[in-house]
Amino acid sequence: MVLPCVESLSLVDHHCHGLLLRDLDRPDFERMLTEADEPGPAGTTLFDSHIGFAVRRWCAPVLDLPRHAAPDVYLARRRELGVEEVNRRFLRAAGIGAFCVDAGYLPEPLTSATELATAGGGTGHDILRLERLAEALAVDILTGQLGVTHFADTVRERVTGASPTTVGLKSVAAYRVGLDLPATRPTDREVAAAVRDWLGLIRRGVPIRLADPVLHAFLIWTGVDAGLPVQIHVGYGDAELDLHRCNPLLLTGLLRALAPTGVPVMLLHCYPYHREAGYLAQVFPTVHLDVGLAVHNVGRRAPALLAEALELAPFSRFLFSTDAFGLAELYLLGARLFRQALSTVLGDGIADGDWTDDDARRVAELIGAGNARRVYRLSEPGRETTAVTSSRSPGRSSGPRVTAPAPATLEDR
Amino acid sequence: MVLPCVESLSLVDHHCHGLLLRDLDRPDFERMLTEADEPGPAGTTLFDSHIGFAVRRWCAPVLDLPRHAAPDVYLARRRELGVEEVNRRFLRAAGIGAFCVDAGYLPEPLTSATELATAGGGTGHDILRLERLAEALAVDILTGQLGVTHFADTVRERVTGASPTTVGLKSVAAYRVGLDLPATRPTDREVAAAVRDWLGLIRRGVPIRLADPVLHAFLIWTGVDAGLPVQIHVGYGDAELDLHRCNPLLLTGLLRALAPTGVPVMLLHCYPYHREAGYLAQVFPTVHLDVGLAVHNVGRRAPALLAEALELAPFSRFLFSTDAFGLAELYLLGARLFRQALSTVLGDGIADGDWTDDDARRVAELIGAGNARRVYRLSEPGRETTAVTSSRSPGRSSGPRVTAPAPATLEDR
Amino acid sequence: MVLPCVESLSLVDHHCHGLLLRDLDRPDFERMLTEADEPGPAGTTLFDSHIGFAVRRWCAPVLDLPRHAAPDVYLARRRELGVEEVNRRFLRAAGIGAFCVDAGYLPEPLTSATELATAGGGTGHDILRLERLAEALAVDILTGQLGVTHFADTVRERVTGASPTTVGLKSVAAYRVGLDLPATRPTDREVAAAVRDWLGLIRRGVPIRLADPVLHAFLIWTGVDAGLPVQIHVGYGDAELDLHRCNPLLLTGLLRALAPTGVPVMLLHCYPYHREAGYLAQVFPTVHLDVGLAVHNVGRRAPALLAEALELAPFSRFLFSTDAFGLAELYLLGARLFRQALSTVLGDGIADGDWTDDDARRVAELIGAGNARRVYRLSEPGRETTAVTSSRSPGRSSGPRVTAPAPATLEDR
Repeated sequence: MVLPCVESLSLVDHHCHGLLLRDLDRPDFERMLTEADEPGPAGTTLFDSHIGFAVRRWCAPVLDLPRHAAPDVYLARRRELGVEEVNRRFLRAAGIGAFCVDAGYLPEPLTSATELATAGGGTGHDILRLERLAEALAVDILTGQLGVTHFADTVRERVTGASPTTVGLKSVAAYRVGLDLPATRPTDREVAAAVRDWLGLIRRGVPIRLADPVLHAFLIWTGVDAGLPVQIHVGYGDAELDLHRCNPLLLTGLLRALAPTGVPVMLLHCYPYHREAGYLAQVFPTVHLDVGLAVHNVGRRAPALLAEALELAPFSRFLFSTDAFGLAELYLLGARLFRQALSTVLGDGIADGDWTDDDARRVAELIGAGNARRVYRLSEPGRETTAVTSSRSPGRSSGPRVTAPAPATLEDR
Repeated sequence: MVLPCVESLSLVDHHCHGLLLRDLDRPDFERMLTEADEPGPAGTTLFDSHIGFAVRRWCAPVLDLPRHAAPDVYLARRRELGVEEVNRRFLRAAGIGAFCVDAGYLPEPLTSATELATAGGGTGHDILRLERLAEALAVDILTGQLGVTHFADTVRERVTGASPTTVGLKSVAAYRVGLDLPATRPTDREVAAAVRDWLGLIRRGVPIRLADPVLHAFLIWTGVDAGLPVQIHVGYGDAELDLHRCNPLLLTGLLRALAPTGVPVMLLHCYPYHREAGYLAQVFPTVHLDVGLAVHNVGRRAPALLAEALELAPFSRFLFSTDAFGLAELYLLGARLFRQALSTVLGDGIADGDWTDDDARRVAELIGAGNARRVYRLSEPGRETTAVTSSRSPGRSSGPRVTAPAPATLEDR
Repeated sequence: MVLPCVESLSLVDHHCHGLLLRDLDRPDFERMLTEADEPGPAGTTLFDSHIGFAVRRWCAPVLDLPRHAAPDVYLARRRELGVEEVNRRFLRAAGIGAFCVDAGYLPEPLTSATELATAGGGTGHDILRLERLAEALAVDILTGQLGVTHFADTVRERVTGASPTTVGLKSVAAYRVGLDLPATRPTDREVAAAVRDWLGLIRRGVPIRLADPVLHAFLIWTGVDAGLPVQIHVGYGDAELDLHRCNPLLLTGLLRALAPTGVPVMLLHCYPYHREAGYLAQVFPTVHLDVGLAVHNVGRRAPALLAEALELAPFSRFLFSTDAFGLAELYLLGARLFRQALSTVLGDGIADGDWTDDDARRVAELIGAGNARRVYRLSEPGRETTAVTSSRSPGRSSGPRVTAPAPATLEDR
């Protein structure tokens, strides 16, 4: 049912996370399944949802169970196999050839980019979370290792000098202050003033957690200046987020100012603002988008979602991602449901004579892998790559110190 | 065509209103049909709309007319049968087993919860409109029967001591100030200050109509403290409403603050923000939603609407409602189109192998009745119930004085 | 596949623009194709998009090429035929019987309403852009030909005395200040003060470009007072626009204030706020909408879009438009995709028994032509018409001077 040209794609997951390394009981599994922090009212279960049904439909067979196995049966089998085997099976089944991993959210130890790549049979690449870098420098200032006036230059050095395994950057401004960021490039003077204000807050006991529109904008500009694609969290996220402040249209002024640089800006997730994001991708040549996270959460509605997101977005500006986090099921579901969705969208067009097989094949390759390879400058699979990487790779030691989990950022991913 | 498990559901209508008790001419019928106050430009008719076509398709046969009968034929037959018979027929045909009735909007006499229940063959339950309660107390203050400083306590007493037929509360803050309500619980001092300001306005000639974010928030907190589910009007309404201030995401801060109480919050209508409401239902375990009012207005588009609303919402957090008001046709259409929609959504999933017959049956029962019975603590049909009620029941006399229509609230429902 | 009653419609295009008069190379063609200013990143093409595929699918055969011809082949053939022949072919094939042309955006010479009508075999009508009128008067004030205090009266005279070929007015407030316009009618005093402020800006070197909420609102009121339908740009546009300020719900207060006049207000484009616009059309009897511009951009998604826009909008309040600009392909695509969409929406309803053939026929005629003829008071085709017109018609000379391109308004259309 899935078009062969889609089924055979070795996907590039341009935005994802590590996996949990422990076995889970049912409440923990439900807690990890969606963006909810808790399973819900007594007598109800999050398995009664699109994603819950999708787990039973698509994941159960990977664990040798019949389709639609009951949740308790599923979880018992999951524990029986053990997390390592479970992770391995789902990663293999997902058919992802490259993982661009944001390891900036680590409430507990998770698999690294290398480990994902090894288990999944692909390559791993790092995405550097900009706020983590800034927060690490705030600590350096507080401990007297860095002067406030050197903050801006040090950020620039760290970004420019990021390990060669770093293929992109990421901003979680959405979680901290929303997306109504200044449209003009902050001056170094404004940056220093904002850092001073921030340090003042920290010294008065506020946790080390960047939440300043000027500094978020500065970080994005710094990434763009370094020529690295900048991912921006948009829309859908957990209960810590104010979704109405995460409409990508709030970024319009900033995107307009960034456009002349030609550096790609990647709008992540986007739901329920995926049409708005598609519009931005049409009018600004640097803007790209995905609907990761939403795809696996909406289950069999993924084709409807993808169809909407692609209404205005040029097909060279749309990317695949899972935004999988913690549960290996999310890799399988993200990839499986995306293939179903892409196949439906492309196949319906072929059936109606609106485009040719060749067109569909080319678009499938662009969306599934080619656009990401172009944006992040990844090698073709099978060719030499410099990016097989690990968060423990030697190059990393000279990079920003972002491997330790920071309690203050526990809520974002 | 409708799945048997959906067709046979005895629905719980968790948000509805009374019916008109007089016969209608065509302009009046058109005026009651949609959220428009007037039939529209000369030479046009509101029968040329989704809801108009749905009336001719689904309601005409209930009045012994052929499908698609012309509007004038339909209205002649309606008058011929008389409003009582028309109301009885549509209520019986709707298959609703329980009615949760908001009688807080009474521009003219309407049927009570008991009368609806009697005509429809089910049970009736009351929803107390919080703003009506506050407005009644404002009158008491103005007439010297209540001191300003006792306002907060009296609201709490009235809510806690509401008649046992009262199963839930309702806020129409959306109509008055929009949904950007304070996220923190107002103190009694703030409440008293707000009441004083409000009374000052009334004494200067402003109609008695609560419109103060602090007081709307206070009322919602009071309901939650009493452990009663609080319905909040969201989105779609008539021309008096500023729809862009009725986005449920504006409630995010308040919903976050309310979540630890565990008390259900019911987002009503939600269109066109039903995806946003579904997101809130996913991330906050206390949040529930419906797409009442929209379902009958969008006619054959109801399946599309329901599918969108259920993308993220856990199936245990979605409810049926008609929001029928005035015209008995709206009960029939609300129920009929909802059954069609639910059947389409569930049946398509079965057909594609995405869930089982049993899953569909369970979800149908949750959405059609079970979720409402859980939230409002209604008895199972056939078992003993304390809730067969009437707005004239004895318990009512000690409850809040909310039966008289208040001109100042004519615009909200 | 398209219903005969839709295929045979002689459409009224109630909002469109002139066509380029020169041949185009591929980058120029891609630049004109969507709302993007540039073709996009190296190695990508805007032909890989819904609209690009639609050009190859629907336009290639009109130029005697096979469906799905490659872009370079298509552009070579286009140049071979020459722009005049290309324009003639697409206009004929579009089946548009009347063109309501906004000639207020002229970055270079474009065909006039008469020329479009002649080439397309229909009638041409003029839409007067209100901001151009105001900007022409600002020049008159600056050159001493008009006193500031006469601005308001002169606007009123020019609008009331517009050439008989002028059937409607248009506001591009969306492009200048967004749609959060004052709800109350500005007084002449407020208008004069705003004009003074504006002239002060111009004298300090700011380009002559109206961007003042009071003046945009004044212009709209002036049009409504003159009894002429006022078109308002809503939603979707190019990179100069801040889309989040173009939500039609921001107009709610103004629309409420305008409703008693009974004068039609036409919400143009609306995407992605077409559901919101449909809601406004339901609750305010004067509000109409279209989804022009979006229809040809979303290609085969047009039926989905139309279905959403019509959920709440009464069918007598929805209109066809292309918003074609520059490329004749956009007339063909706008009309073709609209017919497909309308046919799908109406045909599916017939197939499901939700309405009759006669209903579908009546609605098709309303949406395709009848509503526009009613609103703009156009004659029936085949009957006498006073509106066969030209932007060079004698009546024009006494009208507002709006024919010359003004650099300051280059970004809006």
